[in-house]
Amino acid sequence: SRSLNLAVIPGDGIGQEVVAQGLKVLSAVLPQDVKLETKEFDFGAKRYHATGETLTEADLDALKKHDAILLGAIGDPSVPSGVLERGFLLKLRFAFDHHVNLRPSKLLPGVATPLAGQPEIDFVVVREGTEGPYTGNGGTIRKGTEHEVATEVSVNTAFGVERVVRDAFARAQARPRKKLTLVHKNNVLTFAGHLWTNVFNKVAEEFPEVATDYIHVDAATIYLVTDPARFDVIVTDNLFGDIITDLAAAVSGGIGVAASGNINPSGEFPSMFEPVHGSAPDIAGQGKADPSATVLSVALLLRHLGHESEAARIEAAVSADLAERVGKPARSTEEIGDALAVRVAG
Amino acid sequence: SRSLNLAVIPGDGIGQEVVAQGLKVLSAVLPQDVKLETKEFDFGAKRYHATGETLTEADLDALKKHDAILLGAIGDPSVPSGVLERGFLLKLRFAFDHHVNLRPSKLLPGVATPLAGQPEIDFVVVREGTEGPYTGNGGTIRKGTEHEVATEVSVNTAFGVERVVRDAFARAQARPRKKLTLVHKNNVLTFAGHLWTNVFNKVAEEFPEVATDYIHVDAATIYLVTDPARFDVIVTDNLFGDIITDLAAAVSGGIGVAASGNINPSGEFPSMFEPVHGSAPDIAGQGKADPSATVLSVALLLRHLGHESEAARIEAAVSADLAERVGKPARSTEEIGDALAVRVAG
Ligand SMILES: CC(C)[C@H](C(=O)O)[C@@H](O)C(=O)O
Ligand SMILES: CC(C)[C@H](C(=O)O)[C@@H](O)C(=O)O
Repeated sequence: SRSLNLAVIPGDGIGQEVVAQGLKVLSAVLPQDVKLETKEFDFGAKRYHATGETLTEADLDALKKHDAILLGAIGDPSVPSGVLERGFLLKLRFAFDHHVNLRPSKLLPGVATPLAGQPEIDFVVVREGTEGPYTGNGGTIRKGTEHEVATEVSVNTAFGVERVVRDAFARAQARPRKKLTLVHKNNVLTFAGHLWTNVFNKVAEEFPEVATDYIHVDAATIYLVTDPARFDVIVTDNLFGDIITDLAAAVSGGIGVAASGNINPSGEFPSMFEPVHGSAPDIAGQGKADPSATVLSVALLLRHLGHESEAARIEAAVSADLAERVGKPARSTEEIGDALAVRVAG
Repeated sequence: SRSLNLAVIPGDGIGQEVVAQGLKVLSAVLPQDVKLETKEFDFGAKRYHATGETLTEADLDALKKHDAILLGAIGDPSVPSGVLERGFLLKLRFAFDHHVNLRPSKLLPGVATPLAGQPEIDFVVVREGTEGPYTGNGGTIRKGTEHEVATEVSVNTAFGVERVVRDAFARAQARPRKKLTLVHKNNVLTFAGHLWTNVFNKVAEEFPEVATDYIHVDAATIYLVTDPARFDVIVTDNLFGDIITDLAAAVSGGIGVAASGNINPSGEFPSMFEPVHGSAPDIAGQGKADPSATVLSVALLLRHLGHESEAARIEAAVSADLAERVGKPARSTEEIGDALAVRVAG
């Protein structure tokens, strides 16, 4: 019999509520012969306040023993900005070499978008996850004085760029439209820009069937609102990816339905799946959060582990549930979770 | 009698066409007693190909003698990416210390937006223009090999941040809503983020009437499409400003109407005014370009030089012209320029 050994990090704010629904749907969709084992971890604001810890070496060792990680959200206004982000979220991405940050955007039927004319949106952003301006390189001198200088260093390596670009080409190759767009700012950030552009063009030769193009990140934000249908797969740097995937989520139904995977493709470390939204402390504990983004993250998790038909069933269930919402009164987090669990089981 | 001594840089692609209309409207709006003198400069792709020069010390000396600079667009596919951007556009911004990059966004009546429901949009982005990731700091080792490492260094100084933040507070103070939003990514870029946040909070004490808030750049892109009315004045870093102002232009009528000023507030160097759009080589020379962004840039130029009523007249003319376009056949660049010149003179 097979097993799925899952680390679960509900985290802060609405993280608890949405993860509960994600696990409910996961249990409902898994075949009988797959034994689901979950272990909950208490990372986040509470643990930080109690112990000062965000993520220890022992924590990493414990997480490492799982097939995958499901995360709700980490972050709370009571913790200074950056402490949990750098001390937990980014530390984990770097420690487990989550270099493929996968963020699909699909505007499902019936789902509201701020864009006029209900455009077709169905693309995937492959965001680099372990380099760029996210490395924490940089520093400050003369802090707090009128002579303070603060630097941030974006670090880009041929090794790091090539592996994520190759991953993105492979994903584009596997999709019907077979199109890959590089998003960067190579006319200003010329050092990193040349590296990204050259590696992209080199790897392109291995994928002659994939049509390629290049767009500056500023122009990409224009296309995301005027012509999102032009995108199939996008590959981009860590910071640009952070920015454009929030915009992509906004135009394709909102962060209530945006899922993501922090993937270590080699499998050396477990990959982590999480909704793009944060902990939303303003609505925490009120049953108002939409668990769909977490449930869709569970689908990405299942697909990553080879359970393709279960992933597809979850996606179909969420799609059907969203289509039926139109004009109906809002349901609670749990009601949506229950409805999805029924759908995937049926 | 007064004079306006203007350096004119038509540049590449549609730059020529749109600048001609900008000058036409400028001549029409100026009071009789203001003597307009213009000197044209041939910067751009043609000069680069002919001489290898982008912007020399002698050029800077010649430009310096003017009250202001009007630029069309610089950039051509025949020139490698980065050469004219770094060698001309950014070189000029840095040489003339254009640290206030001003980009207003206003959705005018009748103007199409990709957003549903025609939201109210009327905000100004104050983008820092001489620091951040735009300094050209960084480098490459082992170029072209599988061991290449490329870095980009974002440089932020208390001096540079404070002056632009103070400028933005003053602009917010002068507007009816008196609201200023800092956009950064201080939870990840913690060195620069702390500097920006601390300086922002410190300067805020001098402007007790101005309401302030802070938004991460990724979340800002969401608000720009879901709730752009929440913004009044935004102050942000050079790169974040580059990205969000293209998005802001897209939602508030497109880059055909987006104007900008590269401002040296002390007046030590002439400020430069330019449309946000580029040289658009695909439509160059066809009379298809909308000169409105350039004409609105002329308005910013006039306001900067103290000609407030002329600036307001241009803005009213563009607004009326745009409102009358709905349902009419497209006019040429020149026809629009002629119509605007008639309006401002009338
Ligand atoms: C919370 C923050 C560290 C994170 C990021 O910037 O990557 C978030 O915005 C995201 O996109 O996952
Ligand atoms: C052309 C480029 C150097 C420039 C920038 O990045 O600032 C442009 O995108 C702009 O916004 O003015």
